[in-house]
Amino acid sequence: MGDEEDIYTVEPWVVREPRPRLDSLTETETVFALSNGCLGIRGTLDEGGPVGMPGTYLAGLHELRTMVYTEAGYGDPEETQTLVNTIDGTLVALSVDGHPLDLRAGEVLAHERVLDMRAGTLVRELRWRCPAGQQVEVRSERLVSFRHRGVAAIRYTVRAVDGPAEVALTSSLVANVQLPHLPSHPSAQDLLRHPLDAQEHHADGQRITLVHRTCRSGFAVAAAADHRLESPAELETHVDSDQDWARLTTTARLEAGQEITLVKLLGYAWSADRSLTAVRDEVSATLTTARHSGWDALVAAQREYLDAFWGDADVEIDGDDELQQATRFALWHLLQATARAEGRGIAGKALTGTGYEGHVFWDTETFVLQAMTALRPEITRHALEWRHSTLDLARDRARQLDLRGAAFPWRTIDGIECSGYWPAGAAAFHVDADIADAAIRYVECTGDEAFARSTGIDLLVETARLWASQAHQGRDGTFHILGVTGPDEYSALSDDNVYTNLMAQRNLLHAARWARRYPDCAARLAVDADEIDGWEAAGKAVAVPYDADRGVHPQAAGFTDQPRWDFEGTDPDHYPLHSHFPYLQLYRKQVVKQADLVLAMLLRGDAFTDEDKARNVAYYEAVTVRDSSLSACCQAVLCAEVGHLDLAHSYLAESALADLRDASHDSSDGLHLAALAGTWIAVAAGFGGMRQVDGELRFRPALPAALPRVAFRLRHLGRRLRVTVTADRARYEVVDGEPLTVRHEQETLRLAVGEPVERPTVPRTADAEPRQPAHCAPRRRSRPPVA
Amino acid sequence: MGDEEDIYTVEPWVVREPRPRLDSLTETETVFALSNGCLGIRGTLDEGGPVGMPGTYLAGLHELRTMVYTEAGYGDPEETQTLVNTIDGTLVALSVDGHPLDLRAGEVLAHERVLDMRAGTLVRELRWRCPAGQQVEVRSERLVSFRHRGVAAIRYTVRAVDGPAEVALTSSLVANVQLPHLPSHPSAQDLLRHPLDAQEHHADGQRITLVHRTCRSGFAVAAAADHRLESPAELETHVDSDQDWARLTTTARLEAGQEITLVKLLGYAWSADRSLTAVRDEVSATLTTARHSGWDALVAAQREYLDAFWGDADVEIDGDDELQQATRFALWHLLQATARAEGRGIAGKALTGTGYEGHVFWDTETFVLQAMTALRPEITRHALEWRHSTLDLARDRARQLDLRGAAFPWRTIDGIECSGYWPAGAAAFHVDADIADAAIRYVECTGDEAFARSTGIDLLVETARLWASQAHQGRDGTFHILGVTGPDEYSALSDDNVYTNLMAQRNLLHAARWARRYPDCAARLAVDADEIDGWEAAGKAVAVPYDADRGVHPQAAGFTDQPRWDFEGTDPDHYPLHSHFPYLQLYRKQVVKQADLVLAMLLRGDAFTDEDKARNVAYYEAVTVRDSSLSACCQAVLCAEVGHLDLAHSYLAESALADLRDASHDSSDGLHLAALAGTWIAVAAGFGGMRQVDGELRFRPALPAALPRVAFRLRHLGRRLRVTVTADRARYEVVDGEPLTVRHEQETLRLAVGEPVERPTVPRTADAEPRQPAHCAPRRRSRPPVA
Repeated sequence: MGDEEDIYTVEPWVVREPRPRLDSLTETETVFALSNGCLGIRGTLDEGGPVGMPGTYLAGLHELRTMVYTEAGYGDPEETQTLVNTIDGTLVALSVDGHPLDLRAGEVLAHERVLDMRAGTLVRELRWRCPAGQQVEVRSERLVSFRHRGVAAIRYTVRAVDGPAEVALTSSLVANVQLPHLPSHPSAQDLLRHPLDAQEHHADGQRITLVHRTCRSGFAVAAAADHRLESPAELETHVDSDQDWARLTTTARLEAGQEITLVKLLGYAWSADRSLTAVRDEVSATLTTARHSGWDALVAAQREYLDAFWGDADVEIDGDDELQQATRFALWHLLQATARAEGRGIAGKALTGTGYEGHVFWDTETFVLQAMTALRPEITRHALEWRHSTLDLARDRARQLDLRGAAFPWRTIDGIECSGYWPAGAAAFHVDADIADAAIRYVECTGDEAFARSTGIDLLVETARLWASQAHQGRDGTFHILGVTGPDEYSALSDDNVYTNLMAQRNLLHAARWARRYPDCAARLAVDADEIDGWEAAGKAVAVPYDADRGVHPQAAGFTDQPRWDFEGTDPDHYPLHSHFPYLQLYRKQVVKQADLVLAMLLRGDAFTDEDKARNVAYYEAVTVRDSSLSACCQAVLCAEVGHLDLAHSYLAESALADLRDASHDSSDGLHLAALAGTWIAVAAGFGGMRQVDGELRFRPALPAALPRVAFRLRHLGRRLRVTVTADRARYEVVDGEPLTVRHEQETLRLAVGEPVERPTVPRTADAEPRQPAHCAPRRRSRPPVA
Repeated sequence: MGDEEDIYTVEPWVVREPRPRLDSLTETETVFALSNGCLGIRGTLDEGGPVGMPGTYLAGLHELRTMVYTEAGYGDPEETQTLVNTIDGTLVALSVDGHPLDLRAGEVLAHERVLDMRAGTLVRELRWRCPAGQQVEVRSERLVSFRHRGVAAIRYTVRAVDGPAEVALTSSLVANVQLPHLPSHPSAQDLLRHPLDAQEHHADGQRITLVHRTCRSGFAVAAAADHRLESPAELETHVDSDQDWARLTTTARLEAGQEITLVKLLGYAWSADRSLTAVRDEVSATLTTARHSGWDALVAAQREYLDAFWGDADVEIDGDDELQQATRFALWHLLQATARAEGRGIAGKALTGTGYEGHVFWDTETFVLQAMTALRPEITRHALEWRHSTLDLARDRARQLDLRGAAFPWRTIDGIECSGYWPAGAAAFHVDADIADAAIRYVECTGDEAFARSTGIDLLVETARLWASQAHQGRDGTFHILGVTGPDEYSALSDDNVYTNLMAQRNLLHAARWARRYPDCAARLAVDADEIDGWEAAGKAVAVPYDADRGVHPQAAGFTDQPRWDFEGTDPDHYPLHSHFPYLQLYRKQVVKQADLVLAMLLRGDAFTDEDKARNVAYYEAVTVRDSSLSACCQAVLCAEVGHLDLAHSYLAESALADLRDASHDSSDGLHLAALAGTWIAVAAGFGGMRQVDGELRFRPALPAALPRVAFRLRHLGRRLRVTVTADRARYEVVDGEPLTVRHEQETLRLAVGEPVERPTVPRTADAEPRQPAHCAPRRRSRPPVA
């Protein structure tokens, strides 16, 4: 597809911006952001201006901000945390015959940027005629290293087309970068204007260093850059520094055809608890390592890392080139967000922007880790170990809320609850079950018993305790969970949210199972037989409301008795609804922001019959507005499951294109990481019909007519697998590892290396395709079937 | 009663503080606050120090303050309003032989303060030996005039006991008075430190004037003082002024026995829309009027006004002297809060403190106006006309909330919603029905048809429209009101709150009745027959949940299915619960802060059988913790109705003593006006068993054994009535006006002037007295009956 207005061309392995789009800088900076999950750099232009929203982020590096409440309640958090825009090392300014390179001046004769998802680099090529008439060609390549977590690098080449030309390059580090616009929240503005206090600055040889501190959170952060210069011309070079900047300037007179190449190696180090000295020394060591490698080795290592990744994770989609590209783009950013996040949370916007203040949400466990467990299970382990490192804070929070166990935060950077809206921050307890679910899935998909006995059981036991302390046995004998907020943010404080109850059930029953399986671990956590029995009793008898009149599950008790939102009477400009209507009305009407009951059917499909699923899908399609990017991928999976394959294709594409097409006009704040992760889920669980049940992989593949072939890869119990689905066949293959049994529809297949198995797919039958609310239908990838 | 630690003696008509209680200044300032509903002055010591929290308040005079939200939602108000502490005119400082009078210096030989509720004055008498040895006697009298709404006056006399003594008096006006401690809310602090900007100051002859402005809300406020001095000694007098102060100083050498008398007449004028000049001129006119009157006439007018009030409103209680005093104290402050509030809202703390920022709540209509309609119906008319003046703001708010009609604010000073907590500010719609209820009651108790056809029908129609736009007909055919917050603040966003539904029913059905009765008025409001039919249909079929298993009404749907709060496990120091537990837990458990279902039984008693009432009382007694002062009076009425008369007596006393005994340790912030109004309700509706049904007064009187006689007065349909209840008889008397029929139990009585009717009371039988939660039983007035 790709209409005239698209910023990027459609190509399988690259994202290319063929001409400069100064009107979309903030969006392209997000799309072209480079990261390794530890260090993230937005895709700004080298010269620093024009600029949308510059940003360099280090995982976990945050500042504190007091939260003010007009009417505070007990338990409202006192401080929130905000991801800090740290020292900017991307800047390489060029001047030609005294004119600074600026795309708004002189004449831009050619300009393209290419993100190469196999090379792991962002390349920019431009030809510019400066106002004085000289032409230069510039090529810059940028990478954030997957191999070296604190390292980024830039190779910047300028060539004089006509000569002679006086050329100067300034490569700098800048702290407290001036932002072109500030977020609207007044108390956040001061913090963002000057987040860092200068501590040290150095300029020595070709190396420059800045050391700063955050004021309240007490992080020390150091950035340093080392340079290599090459040119046939004679270079005059100078370095200097001050509190908030350090720079290297080099200048030469180039004859026509001569060039200067600047390689800038960047290192970062930061810590909340180590000393300034330690951090200063660490950044020096980091940089020396990078220098020892050198540019070419960094580039080679980058490709090697990515070859391995794509070998494990690539998805092939025939018949929809835009979706093919977007799916790889999704996987690329998923890797970038997680690869080296060891010991840090993975934020909803990854390290690509300050949306949601850089906070981590349940999205990570439910979307990102669901995908990564199949693609890179060690990343899931790291992420869950990070959650585990915040367990004591979650225990404290549970105590504060008069509950037992651990209450994990709704939003946070380091584990402290940072939500100032308690119907989310003190009621969306499903985050506990989502963490437990991720831990269960990880163990069942990897067999990592060491993890299960340590991190895993700690998480399961303390989350189960949270549920046990709030499950209330009603007069009907079932256990109710009252007054909690489920995934759908257009409902809150509901009783017996089906998603929450079913996920709590899974949490309680698995905690019981693991406690019996690892009695020594259970004893360490002071779990006794009575407690296990209690979990089982509550887990087995969790209430699951059902509306027998309509044959559907209400999202929560009473949901289907609420009046339906007046979709026909709602102005299409009044979406997203939460920007135009009060919570009051959203909460008490049937209108769903994002998959909730539908997500329950994805993660707890075993709790629903096929008929329930079909009716529920039809019912919730009609009231779901997708004002959240977390929804489309879930709808894709369930639509595929009940046979609406064309619709599933459209939802999959909506999820995959969330940022490449800036669908919700807020990619400027950072990526929609969960939607990108959901892209893989929609492919594998949707078209692959893949489910993991107690460690067994089950497939029920089916494709829409528009897609002749979809192939995806995954890791499972130490094996690498490849699944290829065509119009009427599915092919399963173990690429390496021991033989494995999987299920295709009702049949068990034994797979071994070199022995792929092919089976016919089962054609799907479905009722008429469901309708969405007025103005809420997804953009169709193919003509919908005639009703 | 009155134990050793009580601050005040128990006397029928005065509140006396026999010795200075410097540890309780903030509380006594509230109790001794003088007001006429328009101008309020806290009971500070004349010399200004030591002081608890000085305060002079003018009805409606407020400043604006931006509300900051950590996570704002659509419809959250952007500004709140805060009652301003205006120019202080109370200050009269004395120095003797160079020593300023200060109770912490020299020797206080005697000191008492007496609030005389018949004279309408606060008198202070003290004898002091200054550090240099001279003794003086001081008598100060203070009043806020009921006759002249902008006027207060002080007569201050100092007598030299030993002579000669150098005596100096300084009488001043001070703006931006330094407060000894500021409220904890940071954004309120700046505002309270310097609320007023100086505009003009004058000192001329014996008159001093200050004119100021509020910064953002743009009020002009002027205060002026005129003085008269008398002394046999020669006086040297001087006046001067500056931006924030103006003063008169007088000095003399007094021989033993000689005295100086200073009369200080104070005038205030303020306006949000008139010019500075207009306000300056108005205060001058006000002061000239007061001066023309003079001290003696002001005092005489005060007594005349109060004689009339007590003639209309006095309550006599035999057998409990403390309760007798407290009940008159309640009536006194009720009058002070309302007498001259014409055109202004009546705040929850009246004009006695800045608690709740000086906001008006539903308390006014439901508690204060319920009493005043029987005592001074013209006050109710004024108060409802004030609500009516805010109707356009309430219409706008309804529009903002995507509703029709008018949504009156949860808290406000001038009609704009000021709540920063939306589960109250955008969901406690019962305030609409409470306003309608007050209008219906006013019309039924006065027959004021002119009001009904103007203010009344406007209020009823627009509130009915609010309900009609949110009543949802369910599958069962009944109309449901979902997701709203009822009176009980330990629940929120519930479905079918019984109080709300029954009050909405009354609102809808009366709106329909009035629209049919006054078709021209209905046409003016564009009400057509379909709309009236809609109100009737919804009103008649409002859902009223009932828990048949338990034979009680759940406060809202599902309430009785919630787990019960763990009262036994709750530390008595953890009350009030909202300061120690999160809303999450309070909302999803059976724990009631304040009468909700019980209040429904008081205001909509017709919707409950006697058996329901008895069971409901027992049920809710067991889960109600009375963390709100609005509760005890309602419980008193219903306990009396179902026969728990001793318990009713205890609740009545709790309500009456809320401030005289500072029961909840927060009288320092201002009075608990609703509790004081509730005192009268508890007497009349509790022990008198009085209900008004469609304009007919019905009585079912009964007294507890400890009270041999209770008498109360009221006005009804233009008559003055007196009701006297003894152990076994009730006597009804029309004091003036036409004959009237009332009902005693099942019998209709015809009453005429000079023809009192006496009937035997019907002894009450009741089941065992209900239990309250652990640590929540009221302090008993008499031994509870043995179970």
